[in-house]
Amino acid sequence: MSHIQLTVEGMTCTGCSNRLKRVLEGEDGVQSADVVLETKQVSVDFDSAVIDRAAIETAIADAGFSVAAG
Amino acid sequence: MSHIQLTVEGMTCTGCSNRLKRVLEGEDGVQSADVVLETKQVSVDFDSAVIDRAAIETAIADAGFSVAAG
Repeated sequence: MSHIQLTVEGMTCTGCSNRLKRVLEGEDGVQSADVVLETKQVSVDFDSAVIDRAAIETAIADAGFSVAAG
Repeated sequence: MSHIQLTVEGMTCTGCSNRLKRVLEGEDGVQSADVVLETKQVSVDFDSAVIDRAAIETAIADAGFSVAAG
């Protein structure tokens, strides 16, 4: 299982953060996603044979959020 | 130019509704989208030669919202 931690901009309420969690956990290959509104931190555990970091960042962007440059 | 009006569930703040507007207006073929948080109404003007209702509904779903049955 692979793990990434990202800083995501654009979440303004718990509705936003809960929704982003649902979107990520709906992606094939994502085992779990934790999203913390206050710190903007998104932690994702995923199977790198199924999904990669770029696809995770695309899902975040498709949900209307942006990933801060690492 | 074609027009649809949809009822979208899951928006909880103006951050949500502004983000959905940005997501929709970022789709090829969408000329404009108006999103009203309070009434859940989403109005989209689009070029039906480029994008169709199904693709618009998919973009809404990818953003983590759901379209109420018409």
